Amino acid sequence: MKKRKVVLTEDEMPRQWYNILADIKMNPPLGPDGNPVGPEQLAPVFPMNLIEQEVSTERWIDIPDGILDVLSIWRPAPLIRAYSLEKALDTPARIYYKYEGVSPPGSHKPNTAVAQAYYNKEFGIKKLTTETGAGQWGSALAFACSQYGLECKVYMVRISFDQKPYRKSMMQTWGANCIASPSSETKAGRAILEKDPDTPGSLGIAISEAVEAAVTDESGQTRYSLGSVLNHVMLHQTIIGLEAKKQMEKIGEYPDIVIGCAGGGSNFAGLAFPYAYDKINGKDVAIYPVEPEACPTMTRAPFAYDHGDTAGYTPLLPMHSLGHTFVPPPLHAGGLRYHGMAPTVSQLIVEGILEPKAFGQIATYEAGLLCARTEGVIAAPETNHALACVVDEAKKAKEEGKEKVILFNWSGHGLIDLAAYDKYLSGQLEDFAFPAEDIEEAEKVLESYPKPEILKSV
Amino acid sequence: MKKRKVVLTEDEMPRQWYNILADIKMNPPLGPDGNPVGPEQLAPVFPMNLIEQEVSTERWIDIPDGILDVLSIWRPAPLIRAYSLEKALDTPARIYYKYEGVSPPGSHKPNTAVAQAYYNKEFGIKKLTTETGAGQWGSALAFACSQYGLECKVYMVRISFDQKPYRKSMMQTWGANCIASPSSETKAGRAILEKDPDTPGSLGIAISEAVEAAVTDESGQTRYSLGSVLNHVMLHQTIIGLEAKKQMEKIGEYPDIVIGCAGGGSNFAGLAFPYAYDKINGKDVAIYPVEPEACPTMTRAPFAYDHGDTAGYTPLLPMHSLGHTFVPPPLHAGGLRYHGMAPTVSQLIVEGILEPKAFGQIATYEAGLLCARTEGVIAAPETNHALACVVDEAKKAKEEGKEKVILFNWSGHGLIDLAAYDKYLSGQLEDFAFPAEDIEEAEKVLESYPKPEILKSV
Repeated sequence: MKKRKVVLTEDEMPRQWYNILADIKMNPPLGPDGNPVGPEQLAPVFPMNLIEQEVSTERWIDIPDGILDVLSIWRPAPLIRAYSLEKALDTPARIYYKYEGVSPPGSHKPNTAVAQAYYNKEFGIKKLTTETGAGQWGSALAFACSQYGLECKVYMVRISFDQKPYRKSMMQTWGANCIASPSSETKAGRAILEKDPDTPGSLGIAISEAVEAAVTDESGQTRYSLGSVLNHVMLHQTIIGLEAKKQMEKIGEYPDIVIGCAGGGSNFAGLAFPYAYDKINGKDVAIYPVEPEACPTMTRAPFAYDHGDTAGYTPLLPMHSLGHTFVPPPLHAGGLRYHGMAPTVSQLIVEGILEPKAFGQIATYEAGLLCARTEGVIAAPETNHALACVVDEAKKAKEEGKEKVILFNWSGHGLIDLAAYDKYLSGQLEDFAFPAEDIEEAEKVLESYPKPEILKSV
Repeated sequence: MKKRKVVLTEDEMPRQWYNILADIKMNPPLGPDGNPVGPEQLAPVFPMNLIEQEVSTERWIDIPDGILDVLSIWRPAPLIRAYSLEKALDTPARIYYKYEGVSPPGSHKPNTAVAQAYYNKEFGIKKLTTETGAGQWGSALAFACSQYGLECKVYMVRISFDQKPYRKSMMQTWGANCIASPSSETKAGRAILEKDPDTPGSLGIAISEAVEAAVTDESGQTRYSLGSVLNHVMLHQTIIGLEAKKQMEKIGEYPDIVIGCAGGGSNFAGLAFPYAYDKINGKDVAIYPVEPEACPTMTRAPFAYDHGDTAGYTPLLPMHSLGHTFVPPPLHAGGLRYHGMAPTVSQLIVEGILEPKAFGQIATYEAGLLCARTEGVIAAPETNHALACVVDEAKKAKEEGKEKVILFNWSGHGLIDLAAYDKYLSGQLEDFAFPAEDIEEAEKVLESYPKPEILKSV
């Protein structure tokens, strides 16, 4: 019998997160006045203990027992050797994946949701607000809040709210209040509804509503929570890569290539940053974040200062951005439909530590179907982007006759996002073009903002 | 940090299944002529290697490496201490659960689907047919067939086919052909459609179609596969209880009470039979199978000979039965809507080894919601029945001030069966009565059949 899995006990769980800010230089976030944003300016939005993490440059940050207790519901996550995929591709590559679909909501998102709920609770906060698109993040935060006895309010983009009732049910089962966005409960929501009562909503609008609901709560006991992009979110996700390293070590392996899909960047960073640390320190490892060709933030967009949300409420962040007014086509990988990219991931691209890749939607489902029928696990639409890159690299290894070791992040299962598999199987799935005019448009949107410095840390 | 989980490595996976037929006397299945059914009569329906397992009285049966290889995609399954539930109930009981939701389709069903696909493949079979109600079994067999390169055809009860498109998509993603039943492809299906073109279908009709499709395939390379009730299905599921025993032993625990929900009996038997073996050999352990009050096969129905399907195609089986014409009310726990019970489970009830319990639908969702908000995992509607019993026993332990050890089977997650949680939360979930007339009706249906002997093995 072949051994597929490398498991860790709870005793072997990492006790510290890795903070990439210790090892790279970063352009600061800027306020509306063009000056760097200080911690106190963020205090109405986030609790101070999380703001401290956001700006910390300590390399290792302790994970409190109160967080490990909840993570241990599903962590450590298994590392799995993809023997059946290797066989199907007849590749000399050895392929391993870290499987994050074992969490109760089915993705990597709870790694930071649990940490954020914990720190808010510690700070005396009673209620968290957030937005959600496809629903993975909202359900992760609902789950986390239920573990710490926090109230949770989720503004869900209306089109998803209507199309994905299961996600809403999941959030409500965990005790969260999930409403369609735009709603009439916020100024931002009412303004949109007045102009267009039948709007399908957008992530940008939902962010505006969730932030507004947090900062205008007069009790002072409500804060906002974000599932990606920010430094502390990337930090919390590094438990993925730190576990993977321990597991790979146990079997005497080290990856030649590390792969993850990237929308805002969090699952990718979670696996990749501990390896980026090695690379910064001279190790030879290729690291590929993967995005949709139709939303090519990393592979085609400029590195610039831009807002994280559509409405322009957030500070200006130094990142690869298609412009905060960019509306990605209706890709099934909702989690990859984002105009920007985490500033840390963006900086590592500027540094040459990461080499981004892009794939078309149909290619990602082709890879997803192959993996479902070999490895047996049906992947989330976002994960399919990582799979497309893995299949590509495994084929290259075959062409080159090289025994490459490929490690990737299987960020979530696709059991509640199956509609697109049907479309793929019936030949109705589309690829979307990304016209060159969209880059010109992005440059126009971005030209009025300050330019980030091209910093080199390595 | 508390340790929640007891994990096993793949090296520690059980290498043999436990066969309860070695330890209890059974009434034989009977053919239409009233005589015991011989293996050769089952040969058009099942491959001979599985028929041999069905009738074997060997206590320990080796698990082939080719099966362990596939089970290792998700097995060994974790044993988890339900600390948060204990705390919420303020009980002195220590509660443990075996979590079967980690399998790719999300339930215990693949434990036997994989074994059945393997043995059919070994026997030279190219295609399996089956029926599915809510979809758990059909998706498990689709997954298993994809692992061994077998064709798979699933007849899905029309009402579920229409209401649960995700289950169909899942099966198709794994390469199975899933069609609504009744279909025009079989004689049985056409006969029903002629009478009632708008019929919602039933499990009984779907079984008839799947069996017909298998036995009438002229290539001789198609067989039928059943997800519960039969001896070999219970056998394959015992890996659950054998793992649990190893895990409990590691932490020096032995259960006072073992609990599982039971529809056809397979997830219950999987956990409970290895403990029933101990009880047969003098150990003091209470074992509770749990069913819906509205479909009280074990708690109210007679022990009798009856058909396994509605149409009366199967042999007569000695079991607790509400009569094969009984139509259970539309409970959300589709997997527990069955008129009969596995003959082995039924015999153990007759022997006094098992003590069945029944709960109303609302009570099961109350327990499910409590567990979702404490343990963090959203349970399948079937599992909620086990949870209701666990909560009940934990409360009793508190009243009695006893440190009881409770072990139960968390048979699956509920991520694609969330609609009923919404209903529960909005106060719209119903309890269904079970009128005494239904028992009289059952007795009438059963009176023409031979009566099983009341055998005592213990």
